[in-house]
Amino acid sequence: MTRTISILGATGSIGASTLDLIRRDREKWQVVALTANCQAAELARLALEFGAKIAVVADESCLPELRDALSDSGIEAAGGAGALIEAVSRPADMTVAAIVGCAGLAPTMAAIEQGRTVALANKEALVSAGDVMMSAVARHGTTLLPMDSEHNAIFQCLAGNDPAQVRVITLTASGGPFRDWTLEQLSTATPAQAVKHPNWDMGAKISVDSATMFNKGLELIEAHHLFPVGLDRMRIIVHPQSIIHSMVEYRDGSTLAQLGPSDMRVPIASCLAWPSRMDTPCEPLDLAAIGELTFRAPDEVRFPATRLARQTAEAGGAMPAVFNAANEVAVAAFLSGKLPFTRIAVEVEKLMDRFAPPAPASLADVIAVDAEARALATQLLEPA
Amino acid sequence: MTRTISILGATGSIGASTLDLIRRDREKWQVVALTANCQAAELARLALEFGAKIAVVADESCLPELRDALSDSGIEAAGGAGALIEAVSRPADMTVAAIVGCAGLAPTMAAIEQGRTVALANKEALVSAGDVMMSAVARHGTTLLPMDSEHNAIFQCLAGNDPAQVRVITLTASGGPFRDWTLEQLSTATPAQAVKHPNWDMGAKISVDSATMFNKGLELIEAHHLFPVGLDRMRIIVHPQSIIHSMVEYRDGSTLAQLGPSDMRVPIASCLAWPSRMDTPCEPLDLAAIGELTFRAPDEVRFPATRLARQTAEAGGAMPAVFNAANEVAVAAFLSGKLPFTRIAVEVEKLMDRFAPPAPASLADVIAVDAEARALATQLLEPA
Repeated sequence: MTRTISILGATGSIGASTLDLIRRDREKWQVVALTANCQAAELARLALEFGAKIAVVADESCLPELRDALSDSGIEAAGGAGALIEAVSRPADMTVAAIVGCAGLAPTMAAIEQGRTVALANKEALVSAGDVMMSAVARHGTTLLPMDSEHNAIFQCLAGNDPAQVRVITLTASGGPFRDWTLEQLSTATPAQAVKHPNWDMGAKISVDSATMFNKGLELIEAHHLFPVGLDRMRIIVHPQSIIHSMVEYRDGSTLAQLGPSDMRVPIASCLAWPSRMDTPCEPLDLAAIGELTFRAPDEVRFPATRLARQTAEAGGAMPAVFNAANEVAVAAFLSGKLPFTRIAVEVEKLMDRFAPPAPASLADVIAVDAEARALATQLLEPA
Repeated sequence: MTRTISILGATGSIGASTLDLIRRDREKWQVVALTANCQAAELARLALEFGAKIAVVADESCLPELRDALSDSGIEAAGGAGALIEAVSRPADMTVAAIVGCAGLAPTMAAIEQGRTVALANKEALVSAGDVMMSAVARHGTTLLPMDSEHNAIFQCLAGNDPAQVRVITLTASGGPFRDWTLEQLSTATPAQAVKHPNWDMGAKISVDSATMFNKGLELIEAHHLFPVGLDRMRIIVHPQSIIHSMVEYRDGSTLAQLGPSDMRVPIASCLAWPSRMDTPCEPLDLAAIGELTFRAPDEVRFPATRLARQTAEAGGAMPAVFNAANEVAVAAFLSGKLPFTRIAVEVEKLMDRFAPPAPASLADVIAVDAEARALATQLLEPA
């Protein structure tokens, strides 16, 4: 049985891994829409390889290149925000929402509104627009499959179980490259040091988020939307080897954990084949070779991000969008050498103290909060 | 909604833990039958406390004491093998089969033949009578819930998943008190040293089985019956902390593991409440306090039991019953100081080389094989 699929963010890392898996199982899938921001040549190549019906670049200025590359192919080429939404709205059994950042909000929402299955890899969507998005999921009867390794792990540990029986959900965190650094050392951390992640090969922004543990904070907010068991039932534990991706403890004292290699194709495959399974080329787990798994409590003095995230999730409303925007601005300032590493959390907390807009009721509201938060965060960073 | 339950082996360790959980949730359960071997006073006390309909001692000589203790209570008292089967055959939503050893075979079978739910804690039943028992489970449409911590862990890791998607099932083993001993040291191991298990508080026989790793071998054979994914997909890993109770790896590279304290009430509660969950008084898992989980490959030179068990399971038919009987005789000889520790596996292998009866077709066949194997094993141990 062939299934139809659309991939938003097809040229990014998640998109590439998704297509790598589909490539190994070609006859099972029919690709509807592939989208990218502006990588027209790569998008055209993928659209041709997978026989997509339509390819869309979000940035309209890249459309001529895409058109050229797809001329005479029979594949539609389109560009711009409206075209993106139109393409996402075409029926597909599954949509992989893997656009990075707030640019993914509207297309992810359009995918949810189809009322079918959305595999979500767009963190910002759930963090900034959590309530708005989750109510759309409920309204449209959409099946939301989390693709992030931690949330996918939790999803797997909840399979066949009743979420009402959960005692604690524990997100594991590698602790990042600075997990053993003192506060004094942290204050001298450079961008080059921060982007070297011990276990995952990631982009600069997310690597810094891992180093500050803002990444785990964002994931806590996501988990709070995806698995509404209550914030008091959500924990974070530092597990440097990143073999256990997360855990669910039930009221009887049983804990289920999902383990695997640090390869995004594992959670992606779990979503693609759900509720069944599919082959991946990932190495089998060899715990005897790994030897040991270690654990420690997070240190919220050196890494205040998870404490801030918990406060943010508790406050709810617009605060997660503010938290996310403030962090993005602060990370950009750190990466360009304008802000010390340890000031990232300070700047985020400062903005959250000063800016508490009303809860967004729509995606437009979320986008407005995000824009205003970014502007204010940037202002706060300017030398007085 | 009240559920009816019978407990075979009510005065043993599993029986006591089961009743401890039922005591905490009294109004949910109605006890039908409680059985014991001969502990009449304790059985009567439990029957009175839980308002059982019938109490049975397998050993008929203990019946007068039971009768006295239950006179005027309105609770039936009965004794002997026939009465045991009769009591087990009374309708109950769930039967906990927790009689130790081959004495539990016939009553466990009678419980299975009810076609309802059997929570199985009787290892010997599945090891010795695996094929006979599993075909009865299939024939009667019985729900079999494994109560052993390892098998219960696997059962939980399979929930919501398709067993056809399993790549590997890994049983964890503590490695026992001698896991770091050399072969030379092992040859001098005393019964007193062998019965000190690092993680679980158990009886002498099962403690020796843990020290030889025959326990894990028996569990491998059990798992082979309960989860027929193929012996080539079954592994054993040494995990000294006994926090991960077992694991299931799927074809996509996802591994699900069940973790928990070394407290039998966790798997028992999982069976009692299945497919939901219930509270237990067990400590929550605190991995940060535990700090590390370690793993290593089993050493089948020092501990040949798991290799023998695999050969046994591959051979099938009567061989698991022979394996189990030979081990019981050898362990008894070790415990009474007549056999060195390292000779246990040698004696088992010797008997398996010499005695290969045809596959049992019925419970009576299994019991005959068991008896003959014991007699031969005892003979082999006699000084020539």
